[in-house]
Amino acid sequence: MTYPVHIRSCWSDLPKCLAQAGLNGRRFFIVTDENVARLYLEDVQAALSPFFGHMPHFILPPGEAAKSLENTSALLTSFARAGLDRSSVVVALGGGAVSDVAGFAASIYMRGISYITVPTTLLAMADSSVGGKTGIDFIGIKNLVGSFHNPCLVYINPAALKTLDTAQYISGLAEVIKYGIILDSGLFDYICDNRAKIAAQNPAVLEKIIRESLRIKSEIVTGDEREAGQRRILNYGHTFGHAIEALCNFSLPHGHCVALGMVCAANFSHNMGKMTMFHVEHIKNLLEFFGIPVKLPKGLGMTADDIYNMMLKDKKVRNGALALIISHEIGTVEIIEGVEKQEVLRAIGSISRDSSLCSE
Amino acid sequence: MTYPVHIRSCWSDLPKCLAQAGLNGRRFFIVTDENVARLYLEDVQAALSPFFGHMPHFILPPGEAAKSLENTSALLTSFARAGLDRSSVVVALGGGAVSDVAGFAASIYMRGISYITVPTTLLAMADSSVGGKTGIDFIGIKNLVGSFHNPCLVYINPAALKTLDTAQYISGLAEVIKYGIILDSGLFDYICDNRAKIAAQNPAVLEKIIRESLRIKSEIVTGDEREAGQRRILNYGHTFGHAIEALCNFSLPHGHCVALGMVCAANFSHNMGKMTMFHVEHIKNLLEFFGIPVKLPKGLGMTADDIYNMMLKDKKVRNGALALIISHEIGTVEIIEGVEKQEVLRAIGSISRDSSLCSE
Repeated sequence: MTYPVHIRSCWSDLPKCLAQAGLNGRRFFIVTDENVARLYLEDVQAALSPFFGHMPHFILPPGEAAKSLENTSALLTSFARAGLDRSSVVVALGGGAVSDVAGFAASIYMRGISYITVPTTLLAMADSSVGGKTGIDFIGIKNLVGSFHNPCLVYINPAALKTLDTAQYISGLAEVIKYGIILDSGLFDYICDNRAKIAAQNPAVLEKIIRESLRIKSEIVTGDEREAGQRRILNYGHTFGHAIEALCNFSLPHGHCVALGMVCAANFSHNMGKMTMFHVEHIKNLLEFFGIPVKLPKGLGMTADDIYNMMLKDKKVRNGALALIISHEIGTVEIIEGVEKQEVLRAIGSISRDSSLCSE
Repeated sequence: MTYPVHIRSCWSDLPKCLAQAGLNGRRFFIVTDENVARLYLEDVQAALSPFFGHMPHFILPPGEAAKSLENTSALLTSFARAGLDRSSVVVALGGGAVSDVAGFAASIYMRGISYITVPTTLLAMADSSVGGKTGIDFIGIKNLVGSFHNPCLVYINPAALKTLDTAQYISGLAEVIKYGIILDSGLFDYICDNRAKIAAQNPAVLEKIIRESLRIKSEIVTGDEREAGQRRILNYGHTFGHAIEALCNFSLPHGHCVALGMVCAANFSHNMGKMTMFHVEHIKNLLEFFGIPVKLPKGLGMTADDIYNMMLKDKKVRNGALALIISHEIGTVEIIEGVEKQEVLRAIGSISRDSSLCSE
């Protein structure tokens, strides 16, 4: 995995970065969604067209709805109609959903063509834009279908965050906090110390936490691109989080679900005698400062058993045995294979407002 | 690319080969087609079930019709319903179409699970079972969508060829002859010398030509799995052949289309002064001995321009420039970049019965 990641607070440097990557003379195709198209498609086209000509584009519906087989099929049809060949490049302009489906379509068109990611959400900037995972949701299961396909370039313009709605911004922060919890207590402390500046989107602080998150992610992903070992620790909070996300039918933002999952994981670790309650509370306090929920919102109607059963459908489950990623203290991580159902239900109880969710 | 290829004239060795490959304890799922299911599904299940239990299966329609996005979607749904996880293994039992679509579905289910190929046609045994190309047809273009995904094991039972219809058998021979033309005059001569035994499906001769073809293919594919350079020579005859195949809507067998393409390529080379007419005739005579057509059948209604225009849609076309693979004499090969339209039309004229096809 070696590809350039540029962080520039403008669109005007994009053509230069593409040229540096040797992409002059290629045919490009922009994939974006309705929200991002309204805000940035014209700016990006204007920056690129003097150097690369007008680029055809495809506009997906916003959010997780973009990640369907039907949209993949429509994208592939558009690629063919636009005459894309094996040397062509797909530009994924948007959040993680856009790059997931655009990257997936690029990975299977003519057995794989290049794509670049231009993330516009904090979650995508600090996390999903690197690592090469693509995916779509299928028969109600998130990312059940997809591929490993690295982008050939990542261009991050943090200035685009100013139009991101607060819930989405906060949602991305959950993922940044995850990197601190699992591997870097320094990053976790930096976030705590700069929480007010982060809430105010201070550019220097933003760039720092994006860079640090990407550095940690790329260290883990390099050498384990296909998620056989070490990469699994990136799923901290996600085994619980994905199950909650699926059960609420994606009505909660991804980062909120991950945050709830991190609280479950912290409590699981505490229940095993591996994390002190001080650390559990420290994590919860930081999440709560940013307005990230640490309890399941009311009225979702999911039980701990529902969550557990959905967790068993996770791709990480092999031969029916559930594994969990936990941290002992902030900055450490461990994979626990074959966890007990009762312990999982007990951890899920920690995010319940309603005692009926707790199975103890 | 390292995976075991076993050639055994029985089904009973299959469990041992799976066990040797460390696949004990995995969940398996058989994908096959209607024709092969009728002939061999029960035999394969009977061989495997004492060791691996009953395997769920999915039966595709026969032939190229299997290779659709709809069938891919149905396969993925069946994988999920059967509870396949990342450690599960898909068994592609059938011809190239079955392994193309089963391998493709395996490559995108949970971002890629293992598959093995159990080829039942000569074309699949001698060619498509190794190399890792998967694919489906999309908006009328063959293999427009697909992936590179190597099987983890190939099990070839040449005894299965006895139920293969003659047209399909002959069709596979065209591909074997291709290996001789492009890289191994010894194999070409062996085929010429043993033509009667090959027509009679002599087991020792069959095993020899399958082994030699796979050896040549794996030498080429190793080091160029993604078709950036050397692997392109395997497309000898295919640039013309795929265009003819698409234009006749797959009414001609793949091998016949490739054979017609090889005749075009030989004539193209001759017209450039690179191949003697003696060699062109030698190739045609061998094809004709096996009843492989060296002229387009009557009544297909395609013109040389139609074929040329379809060739431009080939995945190998980059930035609009058509490349052709030609051989100078038997056993040699060269890639010609940016060929002239008139020369391509003239070569296509050589397979015409009808002077209107020839544009000279």
